[in-house]
Amino acid sequence: MPATLVTGIAELTTNDDAHPGGRLDDAAVVLDGEVVAWVGRSSAAPAADDRVDVAGRAALPGWVDAHTHLVFAGDRGAEFEARMAGEAYAAGGIATTVAATRAATDAELQARYDRLVEEMARGGTTAFETKTGYGLTVADEARSARIAATRADAVTFLGAHLVPDGRDADAYLDEVVGPMLAAVLPHVDAIDVFCERGAFDEARSRRVLEAGRDAGLALRVHGNQLGPGPGVRLAVELGARSVDHVGFVSDEEIAMLAASWTGGARGTVATLLPACDLSTRMPLAPARALVDAGATIAIATNANPGTSYTTSMAFCVATAVLQQRLTVTEAVRAATLGGAIALGRDEPAPERPDLGRIRVGARADLHVLDAPSVAHLAYRAGVPLTHAVWRAGERVV
Amino acid sequence: MPATLVTGIAELTTNDDAHPGGRLDDAAVVLDGEVVAWVGRSSAAPAADDRVDVAGRAALPGWVDAHTHLVFAGDRGAEFEARMAGEAYAAGGIATTVAATRAATDAELQARYDRLVEEMARGGTTAFETKTGYGLTVADEARSARIAATRADAVTFLGAHLVPDGRDADAYLDEVVGPMLAAVLPHVDAIDVFCERGAFDEARSRRVLEAGRDAGLALRVHGNQLGPGPGVRLAVELGARSVDHVGFVSDEEIAMLAASWTGGARGTVATLLPACDLSTRMPLAPARALVDAGATIAIATNANPGTSYTTSMAFCVATAVLQQRLTVTEAVRAATLGGAIALGRDEPAPERPDLGRIRVGARADLHVLDAPSVAHLAYRAGVPLTHAVWRAGERVV
Repeated sequence: MPATLVTGIAELTTNDDAHPGGRLDDAAVVLDGEVVAWVGRSSAAPAADDRVDVAGRAALPGWVDAHTHLVFAGDRGAEFEARMAGEAYAAGGIATTVAATRAATDAELQARYDRLVEEMARGGTTAFETKTGYGLTVADEARSARIAATRADAVTFLGAHLVPDGRDADAYLDEVVGPMLAAVLPHVDAIDVFCERGAFDEARSRRVLEAGRDAGLALRVHGNQLGPGPGVRLAVELGARSVDHVGFVSDEEIAMLAASWTGGARGTVATLLPACDLSTRMPLAPARALVDAGATIAIATNANPGTSYTTSMAFCVATAVLQQRLTVTEAVRAATLGGAIALGRDEPAPERPDLGRIRVGARADLHVLDAPSVAHLAYRAGVPLTHAVWRAGERVV
Repeated sequence: MPATLVTGIAELTTNDDAHPGGRLDDAAVVLDGEVVAWVGRSSAAPAADDRVDVAGRAALPGWVDAHTHLVFAGDRGAEFEARMAGEAYAAGGIATTVAATRAATDAELQARYDRLVEEMARGGTTAFETKTGYGLTVADEARSARIAATRADAVTFLGAHLVPDGRDADAYLDEVVGPMLAAVLPHVDAIDVFCERGAFDEARSRRVLEAGRDAGLALRVHGNQLGPGPGVRLAVELGARSVDHVGFVSDEEIAMLAASWTGGARGTVATLLPACDLSTRMPLAPARALVDAGATIAIATNANPGTSYTTSMAFCVATAVLQQRLTVTEAVRAATLGGAIALGRDEPAPERPDLGRIRVGARADLHVLDAPSVAHLAYRAGVPLTHAVWRAGERVV
C-alpha cells in the first residue's frame, strides 16, 4: 500500500496530549501501510506517494463503537412502533431475535452483519466490538462468535444475555460457564453478563464473570440500565474493562467508577448508550456527572434490533452534546479514544497498533467531515457529514 | 418527461384518507410530468414509459419543510460550541448573521443557499419555505427575498426579525411595513414577525401582521419560543396560517389552536421545531398535548445558522417520536402533509398541484427509504435512510 498524505485538515482531533486540547489546526497526516506515520502542520508535511487535499475540512480518529450486537436475524420494527405508540411491551423482545437468529443460515447472518458493518463505515466507524447473545445454545453461540470475529476488532461472549425460555437459570449457567465458554473461546476476547432484574442477579453475574476471568477473558457488564442494581459495583470490584448503560447510578457509584482510575490503575470505563436510552424512553445516563467526577467514559451505539437499531455514532455524539451536556470535545473523545480504552486498545501492543488517537504508530483510522470543525457533528445534528474514511490505511469511503 | 412507474413499494404513506390510516401496502405509483397520475396496488399497476422497482422499500411524500432561514452568510459554529460548553451567550446572535449577510455578494448568498437546498434534497425534502430576515434594510431584504424565490416553494418576509442595532423600534417598523414590504412583495407570499420578549411586543407584532394582510400576504408568527407570550393568541385571532416554535403554551392556548380548525374553518397550524428546541436546550414543545387536543401540527427544521443548523427532517421526525411521544404516523404526517397545510399548499390550485399527499394530481414528490417501513426513521435514528427522491416528477436522488 503506498503512503498517503492527507493535507488541508482545518482542525484535526488527535486525542494526543502532545497537542493542546488534543487538537491540531491546519494539519496533515501521513498514512503508511496500516498505521499513521506522521502528524503535523500542513506546511511541514513530508512528501508521500499519494496526496489527498481535504480543503479545509475537519478530521478525527474513526469512531470506535465499543458496544454493538450485530450478529442477528429478524426485524423488530413493528415492536418498536408499538412501543412508541404507547402500547404495552407484549412482544417477545430478545427471545424474538434469538428465535430468528437460530433459524437463520450462516450466510444470512453474515450478509446482514456485512451490510451493517458497511453502513457503519459510511458513517465513519472504523473499529467496533460486537457480541454473541442471540444464540444461547452451545452451537448457536459458537456460530455467532465465529461470524462476529470475521469483521469485529473485539468480540464479546454474552451467553448470559438472558435465561432461555424453559431453562432453569442455574442449569443454564452451568452450560454458559462450561461447554459454551469453551466453544466460543477461540473467537472472543471478553465476557459479558446482563446484570439486571429479570436477567442475572449479582451472584449469578459474579459466577459468569469469574469463569470468564479464569479463562483469560476481559470482563464487561451490562449494568444499571433499567433501574438501580449491583452492576456498577460488581464491575469495579472485579476490574471489568467497562460497565455499559449506567442510566441509574448513585453519586457513590459514580465516585467508585472515578476512583477505579486513580493511582495509575487501569479502571472501569462507563460506556454510555444514548441512542438506547432514547429508543427505550429511559432517562439519558448522567454523562456530565460522570465526567465531572473524573470517571472515564465511552459513547457507543448499542446497535441491536430491539432497543437501539442505529449504527450512527454521530447521532450518539449529537445527543450527548445537545442533551447530556457534554462539550463537543468530551463527546468526540468518548466516541473515539473512550471506546478504545473500553476495549483495551488505546495503547500499542505487539503486532497490533492502538486505536482512538491520530499519532505516529496508531492504526490509520481517519474520518474526514464535510465541515470545518467537529462541533458541526452537534451543530448540524442529523446531517450526514462523513466525507472520507480510511480504515487501517485503506480508503473505505 | 416520460411517465415513470415506481413499483415494489412495501409500505406507501399516502396521507390520503381514501387509504386506511393514510397508508397503502404493496403499492405502486405512476409519476407523469410533474404530478402523480396513478396510485394503487403493485399488482394492478398500469404500464409506463419507465419502470423503477424499489424492491420492498417504504415510500412517503417528500418532506415539506415549512420553516427555514436559508439565505444567509457566515458561520456560528464557535458560538454554538461555546453555548454547549455552558458559556454565556455573549456572541451577537442574529446580528452576527445580519452583518455577514449584508457583506456577502449575491453569488455568495446564492451558492450557500444552493448547497443547502441540495443537501435537503439528499435527505428527502422536496418542498420548503424560507424567509428573509438577515438583511433588515430595504435593499438587503429585497435581495434576500429575490434570492429566496429562486428555489423555495414559499417565501416569507421577516423584516420584523429584530430591531437592528441603533434603530428606534417604531421608526424601524415604519420602514418594515412601508418601503421594505413594498420592495419584497413581488417575491413573497407571507409575512412573519418574531413576537417575543426582546424582539417585537404584541402591539408591534399586530402592526406588522395587519400590514401584511392588507398587502394580500398570508400570516405567520414566531411565538412562545423563549417563554409564555402573546404569539399564539395573536396568530389565532388574526387567522395566521401558522404559529411556530410553541414551546411555552398553556392548555388554554392549545385549546385555542385546536378550536381554530372547528366547523370546517381553516385555522392556525402549530409548527414544531424540535431540532431548534434541542440546539438551544429549551424544553421540547408539547407535541403530544397539541395532537391530543385536536390541534393541527407541522414539524420543520428551522434550518438557520444560529439556533438550528440542520436540514434533516428525519432527525426532527425521530426526535418527535422518541422524545415528544408522537406515533411514527403522526410525526411523518406532520413533516409532510402538516407542512403543506402550514404553507397553504395541501389543496390543488390552478396551475399549482398540491403537496404532502401521494394522490392523483398531487405534485410528484416521492421519497423512497432504504427500509421496509417509515417506522425505521425513528427505529434507526441517525442512519441516513433516503434511497431515492423524485421532485415534481424529476429524479433528484
